[in-house]
Amino acid sequence: MRIALDAMGGDEAPEQIVAGALESVDFLDQDDELILVGPEETVKAHLKPAGSRKSKISIFNAPDIIGMDAVPIESLRKKPKSSIAVLAKLAKLGQADAVISAGNTGACVAAFQMRMRNLPGVNRPGIAVVFPTPEGPVTICDVGANIACKPINLHQYALMANAYSKHLLGIEHPRVGLMSIGSEEAKGNEVVKKTLELLKSDKRLNFVGNIEGKDIFSGTCEVVVTEGFVGNVILKLTESLVDGLFRAIRDELMEEKIRLAMKFKPVMKRI
Amino acid sequence: MRIALDAMGGDEAPEQIVAGALESVDFLDQDDELILVGPEETVKAHLKPAGSRKSKISIFNAPDIIGMDAVPIESLRKKPKSSIAVLAKLAKLGQADAVISAGNTGACVAAFQMRMRNLPGVNRPGIAVVFPTPEGPVTICDVGANIACKPINLHQYALMANAYSKHLLGIEHPRVGLMSIGSEEAKGNEVVKKTLELLKSDKRLNFVGNIEGKDIFSGTCEVVVTEGFVGNVILKLTESLVDGLFRAIRDELMEEKIRLAMKFKPVMKRI
Repeated sequence: MRIALDAMGGDEAPEQIVAGALESVDFLDQDDELILVGPEETVKAHLKPAGSRKSKISIFNAPDIIGMDAVPIESLRKKPKSSIAVLAKLAKLGQADAVISAGNTGACVAAFQMRMRNLPGVNRPGIAVVFPTPEGPVTICDVGANIACKPINLHQYALMANAYSKHLLGIEHPRVGLMSIGSEEAKGNEVVKKTLELLKSDKRLNFVGNIEGKDIFSGTCEVVVTEGFVGNVILKLTESLVDGLFRAIRDELMEEKIRLAMKFKPVMKRI
Repeated sequence: MRIALDAMGGDEAPEQIVAGALESVDFLDQDDELILVGPEETVKAHLKPAGSRKSKISIFNAPDIIGMDAVPIESLRKKPKSSIAVLAKLAKLGQADAVISAGNTGACVAAFQMRMRNLPGVNRPGIAVVFPTPEGPVTICDVGANIACKPINLHQYALMANAYSKHLLGIEHPRVGLMSIGSEEAKGNEVVKKTLELLKSDKRLNFVGNIEGKDIFSGTCEVVVTEGFVGNVILKLTESLVDGLFRAIRDELMEEKIRLAMKFKPVMKRI
């Protein structure tokens, strides 16, 4: 598989992106290949000290950069040779089988919508995130692409996240839940109630009904459908809460006994 | 302080409510008094084995019960002698300084709106929850009373939660944050954007602007304003995540070494 990677996307690009690419080499299959997309000389300079690990990594020149705060469509029009625009081109031309960018989300979405188009029947893109849970991976869509969702958008998010869960995570019949404030059908706002009807009547989905915030980590379903505002809060809250709890545990343990804290470290890492 | 307690509200009432009342006796001040509200004979029967702890507890007879799934206003009309209706009456007559119920939320809200009315200028009640965080208590309003919030409702929730934080939690100038999907003013849906303007121009509030899901536990503010759908997801997600993480840690530790798990128990309890 040829994986194209935006060398210039993200808060600490290209240093951290190139470092990550180099670290990932050990996890690649025999015929995998990494393509770093960015200004050739800059990327080359960061790759330099890496030695033999470079053999699976190539560079594709994209001299321009779209900043994190740039206006998506405008910047794509002005910078057709930006790493993000080139990424979309490589995908469209079949020169990359997968693309990765930690850059400007809006620009990424716009670039790929223009080049690749949506799935048939899908009007609006969504952002999906996979949460690792004790019961296996849970795909949540949308986490922030669309904060004025209509029921039809949510229905399409269900179909897209379902396809992702099935084909990329290998879950045969992903159970799909709709985020609400109670499992009863009468609960939820108007958008949720209308979406419930659409999901219930779609035979392609293994729909399990409304779920609540507590169900994400409880093995109730493998796909969570929610509008972007709620999904974004869920994502950021979860990240910070897990991080905060681990930090609180570490601090408490340090006060108790450093040796105990050290013993606890591998446990945390595994979780 | 006279605290009236709904003996019949909650999934395992009256057993657990009475048990909780008895446990709480040790934490009461000299002149505090607990009033258990419910069917006199039933409550008495559960209090019986308690011995001397009962001296601070009295019973106020309320023969009827409003079930967890009952329709609020209808059931209040039919059952004026239900524990919830009596609770509101005691508060209105000044016979209770505080009331507690784990029963039907809708019925509680309706009963108190009818008896006590809202704060001046407030149209709709909200449900506030106090999250314990490493940086101190954070009051979040609303967590589910109103899932079709208008900006004016959110403004009023800010004022109510601000008053709660100030007068009940003793925080002099609570910092108030508005839940959104980014700290920038341009982020958020239409309701959030309009609410932002209202909160910014209200001199009574120490408003710090938009916050994100990650800010709840990071000491950014002491009051979080959000509409009920998002607040409800936040509440239930947080509860389950903390619970789930602690369980995951316990399981991992148990596999490692039971002695290590035992050492870790008091740390968890403190957190």
